[in-house]
Amino acid sequence: MKRERISNNVIRRLPMYLRKLDDLIYHGVDRISSGELGKQMGLTPSQIRQDFSCFGEFGQQGYGYRVTELREQVARILGMHKGFTVAIVGVGNLGHALMQNFGFEEQGFNLVAAFDLSPDIVGNMISGVPVYDSSTLSDWLKNNPIDIVVLTVPRNIARSMAETIADCGVKGIWNFTNIELELDRPDVRVENIHFSDSLLTLGYFLAEQDNMEKRK
Amino acid sequence: MKRERISNNVIRRLPMYLRKLDDLIYHGVDRISSGELGKQMGLTPSQIRQDFSCFGEFGQQGYGYRVTELREQVARILGMHKGFTVAIVGVGNLGHALMQNFGFEEQGFNLVAAFDLSPDIVGNMISGVPVYDSSTLSDWLKNNPIDIVVLTVPRNIARSMAETIADCGVKGIWNFTNIELELDRPDVRVENIHFSDSLLTLGYFLAEQDNMEKRK
Repeated sequence: MKRERISNNVIRRLPMYLRKLDDLIYHGVDRISSGELGKQMGLTPSQIRQDFSCFGEFGQQGYGYRVTELREQVARILGMHKGFTVAIVGVGNLGHALMQNFGFEEQGFNLVAAFDLSPDIVGNMISGVPVYDSSTLSDWLKNNPIDIVVLTVPRNIARSMAETIADCGVKGIWNFTNIELELDRPDVRVENIHFSDSLLTLGYFLAEQDNMEKRK
Repeated sequence: MKRERISNNVIRRLPMYLRKLDDLIYHGVDRISSGELGKQMGLTPSQIRQDFSCFGEFGQQGYGYRVTELREQVARILGMHKGFTVAIVGVGNLGHALMQNFGFEEQGFNLVAAFDLSPDIVGNMISGVPVYDSSTLSDWLKNNPIDIVVLTVPRNIARSMAETIADCGVKGIWNFTNIELELDRPDVRVENIHFSDSLLTLGYFLAEQDNMEKRK
């Protein structure tokens, strides 16, 4: 597959394309033009064509995109066929919620273990996944190479935990600790989840509405 | 304040600027050039200047931005001084996690109530916030106008719950249900949280690394 250097903006849009394409498949849509896809996603047709052209040619002039085929390609580009393995570190409320309600498998990921300090849950199975004692994490990771760790520990131990995890050869950290983790390791990728970003955006729109009403 | 029509991309970057500026203040930085700010955020200096120019002139040629002042302006643009009121609907693991660990107040929001069906928690206080019975939600909202509802209910009732909430005059919905809520109401703003987007992005980078190693 032809590949150019792909901008971060394009990469960030890929999961959104995937969601939209899944939705189209669910609604029985077979093919879609870049114009229509753009309209539904708030993007220009040329932006859509440009995004997909980074990864090779998918669409056909005057015909548009075959939805199922395009979905397969996007999933492939995202590496969903690789079956990356995942462990969760920190099984508090958020860890629990992710284990019980987030569809790791649907997204192509394989959740294999969880770790926590609390004797109340160590030894339990949650959604078919065993919870081990956090003190065994390093040893366990050395024997069971894992691609991604979901970090849902309290923020005061977030950084040291991330360092430990990176030391054990984990290449991806999905960070829910509300701390901007910037590890000084080019070989480890961190995705920081910032809930506040979207709440603040919501606040922006409400403030705008409020300001407009006062101007009337 | 002079205001042009602001693109979604700029709006989405505002919370990131806020986080970065908070971080700079924490580290005692008084002022910063658009060049340095851009470097730290992976943006070009001209993009930064352009973003802030949408809201009026903050920086000074050759001097840069006063960090505290710029932070205040960004917070104001985001409406953080408005003190929007918030209620959580659905106090499962995720609802609990948000109530206990998400700093609503730090972000300028005022969490005043939570709602759930479970008799085990109705009547309790969580982090100083009362949990009421979901069956009283409509009546309660009519008597206690709320700006934003955090939706953390099971996905099968997400849409009907959102409609009810919108019917009661709530203008913003922060949606954690993993369903893309598109209400047909121009007066209600929905922010959908998609955890999967960032996990898939992480998967993309690991897949890229993997492909590169195989090409070696």
